[in-house]
Amino acid sequence: MSSAPRGFRIDPGWDGDVAGLDAAAVPGFPGGKQEGAAHLARSDAAVDDLQERLFAAFHGKEQGRSVLLVVQGMDTSGKGGIMRHVVGAVDPQGVDITAFKAPTDEERAHDFLWRIRPHAPAPGIIGVFDRSHYEDVLIHRVHGWADAEEIARRYAAIIEFERELVEAGTVIVKVMLHVSYREQGERLLERLERPDKHWKFNPGDIDEREHWDAYQDAYTAALRATATEHAPWHVVPADRKWYARIAVQQLLRDALEAIDPQWPAADFDVAEQTARLRRTMDAG
Amino acid sequence: MSSAPRGFRIDPGWDGDVAGLDAAAVPGFPGGKQEGAAHLARSDAAVDDLQERLFAAFHGKEQGRSVLLVVQGMDTSGKGGIMRHVVGAVDPQGVDITAFKAPTDEERAHDFLWRIRPHAPAPGIIGVFDRSHYEDVLIHRVHGWADAEEIARRYAAIIEFERELVEAGTVIVKVMLHVSYREQGERLLERLERPDKHWKFNPGDIDEREHWDAYQDAYTAALRATATEHAPWHVVPADRKWYARIAVQQLLRDALEAIDPQWPAADFDVAEQTARLRRTMDAG
Repeated sequence: MSSAPRGFRIDPGWDGDVAGLDAAAVPGFPGGKQEGAAHLARSDAAVDDLQERLFAAFHGKEQGRSVLLVVQGMDTSGKGGIMRHVVGAVDPQGVDITAFKAPTDEERAHDFLWRIRPHAPAPGIIGVFDRSHYEDVLIHRVHGWADAEEIARRYAAIIEFERELVEAGTVIVKVMLHVSYREQGERLLERLERPDKHWKFNPGDIDEREHWDAYQDAYTAALRATATEHAPWHVVPADRKWYARIAVQQLLRDALEAIDPQWPAADFDVAEQTARLRRTMDAG
Repeated sequence: MSSAPRGFRIDPGWDGDVAGLDAAAVPGFPGGKQEGAAHLARSDAAVDDLQERLFAAFHGKEQGRSVLLVVQGMDTSGKGGIMRHVVGAVDPQGVDITAFKAPTDEERAHDFLWRIRPHAPAPGIIGVFDRSHYEDVLIHRVHGWADAEEIARRYAAIIEFERELVEAGTVIVKVMLHVSYREQGERLLERLERPDKHWKFNPGDIDEREHWDAYQDAYTAALRATATEHAPWHVVPADRKWYARIAVQQLLRDALEAIDPQWPAADFDVAEQTARLRRTMDAG
């Protein structure tokens, strides 16, 4: 695959550590912030065209291709910015974003995938998960809400769930936005300093920050366990927001190009309908 | 209210005819296509700021303000372009688009508002209906699927439903994209001439076009009956796509400005949390 900003790809067998990956790196992209912004704007048209073809080819059908973009990351890693600047650049009619918050009592009463399954993308659609089923092997591990055996069971359930989606025609893109401890501190501080950012802050964010190393370990374990052939992970360095955006855009574009959706052929007689239409135009 | 592109406002007591309104007009805007595109781009930032405030102030709350943009119009009137270029310019995390297609058997078995109600916008959200409950007084009237008495009952039910939404804090913006018969013919022809547009065409579009006058009458009747103080209509001339876009953007902006959402005050002690955060930063 040609050189392009894609973060660090995590394939099966990876034995690295998330904490060992540079959150300020810009793998696959030779330019800086300004070139990054230009690159993002320039690539919008390509993603746009691919998305419209995907929609045209499969939307409304019982079966067909789709994309699922899973976005994970610590607080302030830039998930909102990805939703706004990358996902937001795509025609909203073809996108289905689900933000998974803390589960409700009803959701808690079911298996952890119960609330996830209904949000798998329909044919022709780009589904986006802002947080996801991975929370159940991340925060649950950090806080000990599930023991090692249960976490292992969940890894297996996730692999199986994702395999089902892939077999049904979905291309899954799993992204961990990788922010550094230092950068998170700066971003939280900005939220505290600006009254127009206070609503984004909650004291629990600092509680979670105090579990930083445990979260990094939980990410490492989850990525090792769930990076599969059918659904690898991508650790996207996120200390530079502009880089994270072009990398996620590139991964989304790769997924659409892998599907290579084509304009569907007309299921009506074009000449006949044209003649029919022209008669109504003469009459008008 | 200052002069700005808002189409034709339809208030209670209106006794005009939709067919008598010029679909190529550009009320409230002195410029042409190029100025229109610049105006659209320039106003994005204002809508963006207002939308973020709306979200910040009310999202996740049990009660609060929201906006519902209802977009109606004949085939090719540009509903998709509005979704893409006006709604699509807003942060997708704060927008909830519902495209209402022909009802399913289950939906048909219920009152016509049954499938609509769950899609009313949550607090803090801009809800958008691409087609809506108005289909039940438009296509149903044109094809005689409901008699005059039933249509009258539905008008009353719609007024009541919209009143409930307004009382709960929603600002409703009802837009009819008003395209001319001639322009529709040209746009359908383009769909037939371009293989990448064939998927947007279906022979039924010409069937509906053959009922043009009945549709114009149905719109006139529906607008007269359902333009209320709490939820007036706006007929937006749509033969010039650029004008329709700036007008709908302006109406959306007006709705947000009427709410005038403010950044919520912090519900935590800012100094205390800042000190706490700084301790984690020294430690890092």
